[in-house]
Amino acid sequence: MSIRWPEKIIFCEVGPRDGLQNEKTMLTTEMKVELIEKSVEAGVKIVEVGSFMNPKAVPQMAGTDEVCKKMKRVPGVEYRALVANLKGVERAKNSGISKVKLVLSASVSHSLANLKRTPDELIESWAECLAYAADNDMEVSGAISTAFGCPFEGRISFEQVASIAERLRALNITEISLSDTTGMANPAQVYDLCGYMTRALPDVRWFLHFHNTRGMALANIVTGLQAGIIRYDASLAGLGGCPYAPGASGNVASEDVIHMLHEMGIETGVDLEKMIEAARKLQDWIGHAADSAVLRAGRVSDLVSLKNAKKQ
Amino acid sequence: MSIRWPEKIIFCEVGPRDGLQNEKTMLTTEMKVELIEKSVEAGVKIVEVGSFMNPKAVPQMAGTDEVCKKMKRVPGVEYRALVANLKGVERAKNSGISKVKLVLSASVSHSLANLKRTPDELIESWAECLAYAADNDMEVSGAISTAFGCPFEGRISFEQVASIAERLRALNITEISLSDTTGMANPAQVYDLCGYMTRALPDVRWFLHFHNTRGMALANIVTGLQAGIIRYDASLAGLGGCPYAPGASGNVASEDVIHMLHEMGIETGVDLEKMIEAARKLQDWIGHAADSAVLRAGRVSDLVSLKNAKKQ
Repeated sequence: MSIRWPEKIIFCEVGPRDGLQNEKTMLTTEMKVELIEKSVEAGVKIVEVGSFMNPKAVPQMAGTDEVCKKMKRVPGVEYRALVANLKGVERAKNSGISKVKLVLSASVSHSLANLKRTPDELIESWAECLAYAADNDMEVSGAISTAFGCPFEGRISFEQVASIAERLRALNITEISLSDTTGMANPAQVYDLCGYMTRALPDVRWFLHFHNTRGMALANIVTGLQAGIIRYDASLAGLGGCPYAPGASGNVASEDVIHMLHEMGIETGVDLEKMIEAARKLQDWIGHAADSAVLRAGRVSDLVSLKNAKKQ
Repeated sequence: MSIRWPEKIIFCEVGPRDGLQNEKTMLTTEMKVELIEKSVEAGVKIVEVGSFMNPKAVPQMAGTDEVCKKMKRVPGVEYRALVANLKGVERAKNSGISKVKLVLSASVSHSLANLKRTPDELIESWAECLAYAADNDMEVSGAISTAFGCPFEGRISFEQVASIAERLRALNITEISLSDTTGMANPAQVYDLCGYMTRALPDVRWFLHFHNTRGMALANIVTGLQAGIIRYDASLAGLGGCPYAPGASGNVASEDVIHMLHEMGIETGVDLEKMIEAARKLQDWIGHAADSAVLRAGRVSDLVSLKNAKKQ
């Protein structure tokens, strides 16, 4: 019996938002714009360009409005931004962003630490966001943080995650990201939770968002693929983390994800070499080595002549 | 449909051999002995204690005879050593080692670079090793390097790997390790090659040996498990590499493998905390940070109280 892998996946670059938000070195607007444009030039069709949060809480994201004004827009590419409230949705609108991702946590403790409100309070507050978005032709997706575990509360039950997702679905949100905010997911859990969620809500478009904190992100993607999930977030150079999640570190590196998928014969539509170039540049700007195996070791195909590197 | 994971696996610590052989810092015999004994205290039942190769080629392994004399032997634990020729088997015998692993490469170029002989020449030369082992009540297993790809030749066909394994089996070798010497394996290939090999040679005990060069080692273990393979090599602190394989770096870290398996609910019989202690000590001795996610970030269960960390 063979494993049936998807032929292709949909890749979302979250480096400009999740990758940067926790970095101390402040990037200029020009650098952020370049990061976004390089990703799009490499073939990325969904880019999370930044967030519209309280600039005091997340200083690196203070200039997202400016980034959105300066970046070149390519037709067919989705430029999305993370928001937490109506003010964020309004700032997105004013910056010409027509897709926002509303975020909450599956865990009450993490939600309070990260967003100062319980999941219930957040969902309630989303009504005005959704109304505003509908009035302004904006799309809304939802992100469930700590879906695979919370650093304060431990494992989150499948029922709890599904119950939140069902409430988002009831608000007519049909695209939901399951985030492993602090790198607690394991491959068996990923397969089982994704199966549970797709059975509970078969008409939702699911994204998976893994951090490589304990080295399991690529393994988690492998079982995510087997559970039929074809949308994956990752961050150039493996930067990132959540400022309010102790132990959080590094999104899985975009170039590591794309490299693995290409080696497996799964299409991403993304030019790996261009992503590696962008990741190297980002690493230089940030000024420290990131958690990227491909940046350290190169691609498998770098080892051998292209002629010989062909898949069997 | 759910994935059927094995209930438990058999773990082999190769740090004292593959982990150390490429390190410039020379460890003392006492340190190596401590490494082996700590692994056994943690519950490891198979330890690759060193190799009996040309000391000029692999200076770190020059003292393996001494290590074998000094280490405490625990009944029920298999202390195995890597060898390449009759002289190695004899040295193993004289050091009280009753299990040797004979190594060759699936690729001619790598075999010549690493062992100065072609796979054919090596297999031919093994006859005397096997005869000597049989006369001396020693067990012999085989290791096929570059089974998933060669840095000089690229991909190695399944047929080529199977043909070598069949010749080992014809020599009455019933335990074979498939080694991803330079970290070129990907999860789809691992599943397919393992399926191919287990169908071709159903009565062989297979080991998988992954390097984490491109971050895919844990993902490869995940599909190896799905292909029914339950024996895995790893190296404390993620040390290691092959001196004759360009681009080779780091075995997958024992503590990362054991951590992932335990998180998945798969038994290893190994005490993770004790392995982490041993890995930290080894990292201190070697004097540089190794490629170990768990040493960097801690366990998932470190994030939350034990009460809450229970699996759902």
